[in-house]
Amino acid sequence: VPSTTTTLKNKLVYGFKGKQPFLVLVRIQDLTPEKADQLVWVRARIHTSRAKGKQCFLVLRHQQFNVQALVAVGDRASKQMVKFAANINKESIVDVEGVVRKVDQKIESCTQQDVELHIEKIFVISLAEPRLPLQLEDAVRPDGAGDEEGRATVNQDTRLDNRVIDLRTTTSQAVFRLQSGICHLFRDTLIKKGFVEIQTPKIISAASEGGANVFTVSYFKTSAYLAQSPQLYKQMCICADFEKVFCIGPVFRAEDSNTHRHLTEFVGLDIEMAFNYHYHEVVDQIADTMVQIFKGLRDNFTTEIETVNKQYPSEPFKFLEPTLRLEYKEGVAMLREAGIEMGDEEDLSTPNEKLLGRLVKEKYDTDFYILDKYPLAVRPFYTMPDPSNAKYSNSYDMFMRGEEILSGAQRIHDPDLLTERAIHHNIDLEKIKAYIDSFRYGAPPHAGGGIGLERVTMLYLGLHNVRQTSMFPRDPKRLTP
Amino acid sequence: VPSTTTTLKNKLVYGFKGKQPFLVLVRIQDLTPEKADQLVWVRARIHTSRAKGKQCFLVLRHQQFNVQALVAVGDRASKQMVKFAANINKESIVDVEGVVRKVDQKIESCTQQDVELHIEKIFVISLAEPRLPLQLEDAVRPDGAGDEEGRATVNQDTRLDNRVIDLRTTTSQAVFRLQSGICHLFRDTLIKKGFVEIQTPKIISAASEGGANVFTVSYFKTSAYLAQSPQLYKQMCICADFEKVFCIGPVFRAEDSNTHRHLTEFVGLDIEMAFNYHYHEVVDQIADTMVQIFKGLRDNFTTEIETVNKQYPSEPFKFLEPTLRLEYKEGVAMLREAGIEMGDEEDLSTPNEKLLGRLVKEKYDTDFYILDKYPLAVRPFYTMPDPSNAKYSNSYDMFMRGEEILSGAQRIHDPDLLTERAIHHNIDLEKIKAYIDSFRYGAPPHAGGGIGLERVTMLYLGLHNVRQTSMFPRDPKRLTP
Repeated sequence: VPSTTTTLKNKLVYGFKGKQPFLVLVRIQDLTPEKADQLVWVRARIHTSRAKGKQCFLVLRHQQFNVQALVAVGDRASKQMVKFAANINKESIVDVEGVVRKVDQKIESCTQQDVELHIEKIFVISLAEPRLPLQLEDAVRPDGAGDEEGRATVNQDTRLDNRVIDLRTTTSQAVFRLQSGICHLFRDTLIKKGFVEIQTPKIISAASEGGANVFTVSYFKTSAYLAQSPQLYKQMCICADFEKVFCIGPVFRAEDSNTHRHLTEFVGLDIEMAFNYHYHEVVDQIADTMVQIFKGLRDNFTTEIETVNKQYPSEPFKFLEPTLRLEYKEGVAMLREAGIEMGDEEDLSTPNEKLLGRLVKEKYDTDFYILDKYPLAVRPFYTMPDPSNAKYSNSYDMFMRGEEILSGAQRIHDPDLLTERAIHHNIDLEKIKAYIDSFRYGAPPHAGGGIGLERVTMLYLGLHNVRQTSMFPRDPKRLTP
Repeated sequence: VPSTTTTLKNKLVYGFKGKQPFLVLVRIQDLTPEKADQLVWVRARIHTSRAKGKQCFLVLRHQQFNVQALVAVGDRASKQMVKFAANINKESIVDVEGVVRKVDQKIESCTQQDVELHIEKIFVISLAEPRLPLQLEDAVRPDGAGDEEGRATVNQDTRLDNRVIDLRTTTSQAVFRLQSGICHLFRDTLIKKGFVEIQTPKIISAASEGGANVFTVSYFKTSAYLAQSPQLYKQMCICADFEKVFCIGPVFRAEDSNTHRHLTEFVGLDIEMAFNYHYHEVVDQIADTMVQIFKGLRDNFTTEIETVNKQYPSEPFKFLEPTLRLEYKEGVAMLREAGIEMGDEEDLSTPNEKLLGRLVKEKYDTDFYILDKYPLAVRPFYTMPDPSNAKYSNSYDMFMRGEEILSGAQRIHDPDLLTERAIHHNIDLEKIKAYIDSFRYGAPPHAGGGIGLERVTMLYLGLHNVRQTSMFPRDPKRLTP
């Protein structure tokens, strides 16, 4: 550790003259030719460092921006200072004072291509360990590129084990900024539509859907469960006259599924809405919300999408307005035409869902569609049967690039019919008494659905694993960091 | 149950002519004198019902709006229909067709005071049970009013046990619409300030602060814990260069505290931010976020505030801009002046916090202030000591009406100092290894804090129990509904 290393807590250079800080930090993205020949302070990480004779070349990075910098023996820097700079570990955070200089030839490897920084002072704000568990250059290399040229890529477990570093890559920064955008667009759209945001409890006294796949919590002298869905609470809010509600929160599934799209804890974007005439009023609102999200991402997150595409190339996400809505039996007919044998009331397998997604894309040129009127037999007990055909139901899934992102239905709001359907499904009535009782004091007809945030992010960007779009993913084998 | 009762699923009257619904429902708040003499359809609950000879007077309610309606034997209604209407249980949802009529004398008891509805058709959409566990009129009566006039009020457990009905009151509707507004204002303000929303895991592998007060979850073949705070994850995001982050999510505390302000599960509004020069940059941002919330509520939720005040009178919430910031020792001096004996490094008791709130209100005329620079001894191990006085720390609480709503601090970002402080606090280093290791690859100086949503709603409205501002509260004795 160089001896002049200093940390913020005892550094005198930071002070205030009245309300003005003693020095003003300039952001790397603002280092442009307009600032040429100005002396500026910059805070950044040492992205790379290369000493060469009496000079040390650094690349300084702040978030997705970087700039070339130079410390050279001369009037403003001593031999010791060059040595000091060259010895600062990569990923350390430094404050540097230097002069912005225009360059003759564009620096292709940096985001700030027209300038470099000639450093006169350098302070270490926070020193990184000398050995990094992964290299940022490796972590943004497209899969496959490593094999061909003998350069490394970083495997998923190494990334996740060292998430603090992996999240610093331009790709990760873009993925999670875009994900923040999805949440914002979702809520903004719904608030404009008159929805009320609700907060639902995650610790519950009874397992909602019969008790399978539920995590148990010890709760003082008794035990409780983690909510597998906010559905009951959303429905209670509808019965309490909130009319249109949404919530964003964690959803817990104790499924021992180790696939690319299952997590034991994920973020649910949930909607529930009373309707006047037909459950399609709700389907249309949900679909339009998705369309507003897709539009917002396309229009406001171009840079993020391009950044992710550099590492993980994918086709732009296509959607129609209004959204394509197919009936389940139309989907089955398309699959049969493609050679798949399946029964009318058989559920879609994951490969068939994907195939149907491709068929729909070919025929309608959309990556997003709704499959409506699922067979009653494959849906949960609370699903409203189709009044005109008892084999089907008022339920729907929504798909992005052939994978399910939302499952929803008109819910039975009549306690007697709900009881009848629960008995048909062999559900212990005692366990769902509170659920059924919620509808005994007048319940408006309503429908809703739940969207998996990580899946939406993954599929919008054309990524292939939900762990890439969960900051700190949880699965049967991973509980850390 | 009247035999003509019908439910939506088999009612023919609801259909579409092309894209237009066969009938159009008008909302109760839109029943104004401009609609006089028009025939309209309305969907509403039966709020009250009173038969009188050949007439039946109903009050129809939708959310916080209600209107008087009348079924009278004559050209458009039979004796049987009047009887049918009179027999519909309160809280049932009905569709009625009727003519809007101007009234000569204002109907003081309804929100629509200038019109009444002369009903010609009535359909029951969803029938309520004949006996309600609580009456809505009782549930909105101010405390104490019941005793004087011999009319009932509803106790808290009855309300919470029957939350679906209690949430229908004008007071509950107002409380939770305002709470939705707090979340929206919080996020909107932070997104405008350049913050990124993050999602942090709730199931964690190690108890963050030493293991006290934490719920245990069975996790496949091992066990895990419920996060007591998203702090570690927020800090990891700062170390991963997101710079300014926020999250809204459940926070779990296995404390056996049965007070007016403790819940075992509450909603945390959390902020974390890297700063350049001084942790007050962060304090100022948090305080300004609160001020934007207060302003937004004052300006956009007037009706909701008035509605709640009718049942629970309170003084309007006062705040200063910029927010008052006192040092802890100034607070102690004020308390001593008021006769309280306490040591310099002693923590504030709850009664002393309240007293200090009153003293601050008297002196500065504000219900919101920041108490800064707490004694180091009373804060957690990760709190940054004050570099100019080792007895104090760079930490702060924020108060509304004398109760704490936020606790925050500059966090130690240097792994060696963090280790030293953990040892000082007798914390098992092995248990917090992952936490300390997060800072080993370069960490910017940062600070943050967590706000309890239910407390903010309660204290802004001048309510007295956090269970009034949690839709489905969880405490050591309550896990349902």
